[in-house]
Amino acid sequence: MTSNTTASDDFKLRSFASDNNSGAHPAIMQAVVEANHGYMRAYGEDPISEQADAKLKEHFGQDARIHYVTTGTAANVLGLRAVTRTYNSVICSSMAHIHMDECGAPEAFGGTKLVTIPSEDGKLTPGMIAPYLGHVGFVHASQPKVISITQTTEEGTLYTPDEIEKLVHFAKDHDLLVHMDGARLANACAALDCSFFDLTTALGVDLLSFGGTKNGLLMGEAVVFLNPEIGEGFQYLRKQGMQLVSKMRFVGAQMLRYLQDDLWLQNARHANDMAKRLAHKAGELEHVTIKGEVQSNGVFAQIPPEATEILLEKYYFYVWDEHSHTLRWMTSWATTEAEVDEFVADIKKAVEQVK
Amino acid sequence: MTSNTTASDDFKLRSFASDNNSGAHPAIMQAVVEANHGYMRAYGEDPISEQADAKLKEHFGQDARIHYVTTGTAANVLGLRAVTRTYNSVICSSMAHIHMDECGAPEAFGGTKLVTIPSEDGKLTPGMIAPYLGHVGFVHASQPKVISITQTTEEGTLYTPDEIEKLVHFAKDHDLLVHMDGARLANACAALDCSFFDLTTALGVDLLSFGGTKNGLLMGEAVVFLNPEIGEGFQYLRKQGMQLVSKMRFVGAQMLRYLQDDLWLQNARHANDMAKRLAHKAGELEHVTIKGEVQSNGVFAQIPPEATEILLEKYYFYVWDEHSHTLRWMTSWATTEAEVDEFVADIKKAVEQVK
Amino acid sequence: MTSNTTASDDFKLRSFASDNNSGAHPAIMQAVVEANHGYMRAYGEDPISEQADAKLKEHFGQDARIHYVTTGTAANVLGLRAVTRTYNSVICSSMAHIHMDECGAPEAFGGTKLVTIPSEDGKLTPGMIAPYLGHVGFVHASQPKVISITQTTEEGTLYTPDEIEKLVHFAKDHDLLVHMDGARLANACAALDCSFFDLTTALGVDLLSFGGTKNGLLMGEAVVFLNPEIGEGFQYLRKQGMQLVSKMRFVGAQMLRYLQDDLWLQNARHANDMAKRLAHKAGELEHVTIKGEVQSNGVFAQIPPEATEILLEKYYFYVWDEHSHTLRWMTSWATTEAEVDEFVADIKKAVEQVK
Amino acid sequence: MTSNTTASDDFKLRSFASDNNSGAHPAIMQAVVEANHGYMRAYGEDPISEQADAKLKEHFGQDARIHYVTTGTAANVLGLRAVTRTYNSVICSSMAHIHMDECGAPEAFGGTKLVTIPSEDGKLTPGMIAPYLGHVGFVHASQPKVISITQTTEEGTLYTPDEIEKLVHFAKDHDLLVHMDGARLANACAALDCSFFDLTTALGVDLLSFGGTKNGLLMGEAVVFLNPEIGEGFQYLRKQGMQLVSKMRFVGAQMLRYLQDDLWLQNARHANDMAKRLAHKAGELEHVTIKGEVQSNGVFAQIPPEATEILLEKYYFYVWDEHSHTLRWMTSWATTEAEVDEFVADIKKAVEQVK
Repeated sequence: MTSNTTASDDFKLRSFASDNNSGAHPAIMQAVVEANHGYMRAYGEDPISEQADAKLKEHFGQDARIHYVTTGTAANVLGLRAVTRTYNSVICSSMAHIHMDECGAPEAFGGTKLVTIPSEDGKLTPGMIAPYLGHVGFVHASQPKVISITQTTEEGTLYTPDEIEKLVHFAKDHDLLVHMDGARLANACAALDCSFFDLTTALGVDLLSFGGTKNGLLMGEAVVFLNPEIGEGFQYLRKQGMQLVSKMRFVGAQMLRYLQDDLWLQNARHANDMAKRLAHKAGELEHVTIKGEVQSNGVFAQIPPEATEILLEKYYFYVWDEHSHTLRWMTSWATTEAEVDEFVADIKKAVEQVK
Repeated sequence: MTSNTTASDDFKLRSFASDNNSGAHPAIMQAVVEANHGYMRAYGEDPISEQADAKLKEHFGQDARIHYVTTGTAANVLGLRAVTRTYNSVICSSMAHIHMDECGAPEAFGGTKLVTIPSEDGKLTPGMIAPYLGHVGFVHASQPKVISITQTTEEGTLYTPDEIEKLVHFAKDHDLLVHMDGARLANACAALDCSFFDLTTALGVDLLSFGGTKNGLLMGEAVVFLNPEIGEGFQYLRKQGMQLVSKMRFVGAQMLRYLQDDLWLQNARHANDMAKRLAHKAGELEHVTIKGEVQSNGVFAQIPPEATEILLEKYYFYVWDEHSHTLRWMTSWATTEAEVDEFVADIKKAVEQVK
Repeated sequence: MTSNTTASDDFKLRSFASDNNSGAHPAIMQAVVEANHGYMRAYGEDPISEQADAKLKEHFGQDARIHYVTTGTAANVLGLRAVTRTYNSVICSSMAHIHMDECGAPEAFGGTKLVTIPSEDGKLTPGMIAPYLGHVGFVHASQPKVISITQTTEEGTLYTPDEIEKLVHFAKDHDLLVHMDGARLANACAALDCSFFDLTTALGVDLLSFGGTKNGLLMGEAVVFLNPEIGEGFQYLRKQGMQLVSKMRFVGAQMLRYLQDDLWLQNARHANDMAKRLAHKAGELEHVTIKGEVQSNGVFAQIPPEATEILLEKYYFYVWDEHSHTLRWMTSWATTEAEVDEFVADIKKAVEQVK
Repeated sequence: MTSNTTASDDFKLRSFASDNNSGAHPAIMQAVVEANHGYMRAYGEDPISEQADAKLKEHFGQDARIHYVTTGTAANVLGLRAVTRTYNSVICSSMAHIHMDECGAPEAFGGTKLVTIPSEDGKLTPGMIAPYLGHVGFVHASQPKVISITQTTEEGTLYTPDEIEKLVHFAKDHDLLVHMDGARLANACAALDCSFFDLTTALGVDLLSFGGTKNGLLMGEAVVFLNPEIGEGFQYLRKQGMQLVSKMRFVGAQMLRYLQDDLWLQNARHANDMAKRLAHKAGELEHVTIKGEVQSNGVFAQIPPEATEILLEKYYFYVWDEHSHTLRWMTSWATTEAEVDEFVADIKKAVEQVK
């Protein structure tokens, strides 16, 4: 994953690099501003965080226990650490964020062994996992405890409810838990026309890293335990994991607003729509190939490498795979139709210039 | 540390419990709002964070390397982990936040052994430390590497520049580093009429946990390496330590504004002044004893326990030491003279009622 | 703890430094030699190790689960790790081996926070522990889970059955476990005329580091879980903790022989007797002060420092406390009466020479 | 890896399961017995251990620093931990012992992320590694630091000196270290007619897990740092890693004898010869396929599964790969020609019975 542009003081970045490059949705920011009055208890005992908890329970069921953290890595590492002993392993795809993009945090700060299964589209199936479960009870082998899936995946693909259900059944049959890295769960819900509940609790997912930042928050993620039998003592683990922020009200306020009036859904739908618009329009250009169907807010595309050079002078995005020269273009709640159209026009120009 | 009041949905909390119970200073919030435009690179490569870095270097010297994190625990644990091997120990006072208030994070997430030295006022001196340095080179003993001091201490006391200098000299003589937990460094600077540089870089402090949240930020701390020979690779450790927030601009914006126009100093001075006002006025009451001199923004007081019961119905604060029934009252940038005066009047009433 | 003599190729060391300086008891060595025939399954599934397990259950009760390791540090660190989560703390004396002599292993390889209580004789009482239990349920504080005691202590003192029982009751009242570092448990049994069962299982001790090496083994310790509710999955933790030796038969053979024909008891009694002989005879000398009553196989003595210099030319032992110039002299199963008497004669000469 | 036979009290095991199922070579045992006289300093400061160190330096060069441990897992985990920071990763084959057979110890007790590369024969080449080095300097990715190879591999194959040299050059070009898991290094030396030096120091290998147990020791492995720039402070790490045994003389004595009079070489040659004999004779049988060339002391074979059932009633060995029904038969210093021939005869009978 590389970008040819350099860090700069440019305040007018044009980015299709990541949904993290967008700011906060104005309504979220407004909620933060409104939370800034008077004294409140620290560390999540404030009334705003408590309201946010209640709101999350509306979405995930009354058994859910919610713990806010500030990064997706923290949600993944601490959630997985909470449900494993160090001799357990976590099964994930070879493209998983926990394996590729967290700098070894699960291993070093979670003490967790990852068992990675090669996967081109970022998804796992029971059939792919089965061969890795052979050493149960063998003292020399790390003991599998969790299947971790990402929804939507790092490759922009989706798990359908049916696919998740099959994984959950398989997991239960093998005494495993199912963890969902839901950094972009909202985009999956929007794409599949499902509620959060539909895609998690209803299917028997045990624990969830619930993302907010990529879909319009300033900073806010949560570890959500859905299975009532897990997660005991997590409040201590979060504190110890350096994630118990003092002025938690500012996280709670974001979460509360995010879940009100379907803001989360509007943002995710918009991001998905912009990705589809981009894929559709760019896909019609000569010398531009859109890889796979666009299922959420990521577009994977191939254009002539020389055209990439030209585009990177104006835009910020990643060459996702250098070998095949595949580009990743992400959209977000903030992406406008005009931005997409201008980008497509620029792609067209760049491609024409080099052909 | 206990409080008799229960968590509630009261949005009108009257708190002298912690500077963490205040919100963000309006100017800080304004900076966050203003940072919310357009796309910016994530993970600290944005222009606002880079400006904040430059501003911090103005305060701490051009050799300083600055890494933002979201909690004080993260700043302490990751900073200490960066400069130690696991067979090293960190020497601190028995009252140190890293020992008493971080749920074992330095040990469990830092792999760091703490060697605690009994200290009533939260301070350390070379004479107190010397007896703990006997086993250097003895393979069975954890090898001391860092002296960690808190400025201002957990007990509200201060280290003078001269005291810090003596500790630094002692540390260098014994091949140790000096870490400062500066969660309330601003209050110390205000009290001692010193700059940040005066109290850290100029004295030879090696690394600093630079606090912002307690003095008016929403959420923002930093690990600052001052000694040019330490801190290599910390960018990876922060990521791995789950502290690399994606939309870093919102932390950078706070830090940048905090250090402009002496906002940090005004906030800290105000908090200190309010503590002095409270100590002065409450200290004149019968049956109220202010413990020690008020050096920063914390007041430690003794009143009849029955009076505490009465006050806790209206106010939120901690019984700091149950044995001696010592209360801790903290003030902040947000505390008003009127609030102090009303509190003093209520203390007076409560004390009179029970005597 | 220092010794003025230097490491050398001297094969005729005269040592009162540690029971670790003795070799293996001939009967133990013989058992090892006899175990060396034919093929056996590795990793503890051999018949000798299984017999040793059965023998240990005779001594500790049928609920005991036994896991051999090769060092006392491993027994302590892995046993404690097995019964704690990382946010738990272990309460121990300030003289405890786990705090002073394991190079931070419990923290770094166990993730365990130690809470140390000042103790001059190495012992703990409920009254000493009570003040350290104040923050139960407070998320910022490490949560106490285990009281760890050493029997006999690092200072050569003993816990009586009654004292242990009181600690166990106190522990149960506070939802704590009791761990015994029994590196020298045999010496305690010999001194108190108790069986292993009497001093552990019968009193409700939850887990034990069972020492063998100091009392005549080549190399052999065990983690013994006595409380049936703890220790699940420890087989994986031991493997992961690098302590699952392949040719386990050679450890099992030692343990089995150690527990046959009261060998353990004879060895420990002999060591204790030699310590008493040394203390009695040396204590009669002018300018020699024996500190406290000799309860097991360690003698703590004060002589003129100049006399120590002379003795260290011929003998190997530790100056235990440099400040008070207290020496530690350890005896073992191998110490002979003649060696004691010669040592006493040499002490006499050395003292006379400098006075 | 499974075996159908159950643990039993059978003292007459017939094993081709592992070289770990053999006892200690008589000469090694004799050395242990002889080391059992008089007092010696503990923890490796004894004269025998010092002689063993000197002997190891004869074999590995005067820059080698040697640290004994009791398990191969300890050698691997602690050696790798010593040369990495937690944000580093270790590249190994998907068959590597550190990945498959150490129960997650490198991750949990080393804090090390493993990056595994699919390899059918257990070997790695620069070409296989290159695609995994793409994210150097990218803060989200664990930073590669070590290439770990096993000699001989878990699949019984060998690296030639030339292959190792190529890996070392590749490693140096990419600022990586080369670690060799040499649990069976002696077998490789015997097979390639090389000295230890030839296969390690001379080729630029940086650190080595030097195995002894599988080739005739009771218990004894070593971490050997060959590169003079690495390994600082390892003495503390070993202690902390629970591997500093007190009566180290008994490990040192084994190592010393092992390296005298080419005992290590005779043992390894014999084991290799027995494997070749077994492969040669069994390979001539109908319905028996020997997989690949036998390069060291492991034979991988395929026979009808029903024949395996019959053989497992009398013999102990592993079904190495259940899918392809591949068996692993290991020989050792203790395997006799008669045992091999009897085994071959029994294989013949079993195969004939089912065909």
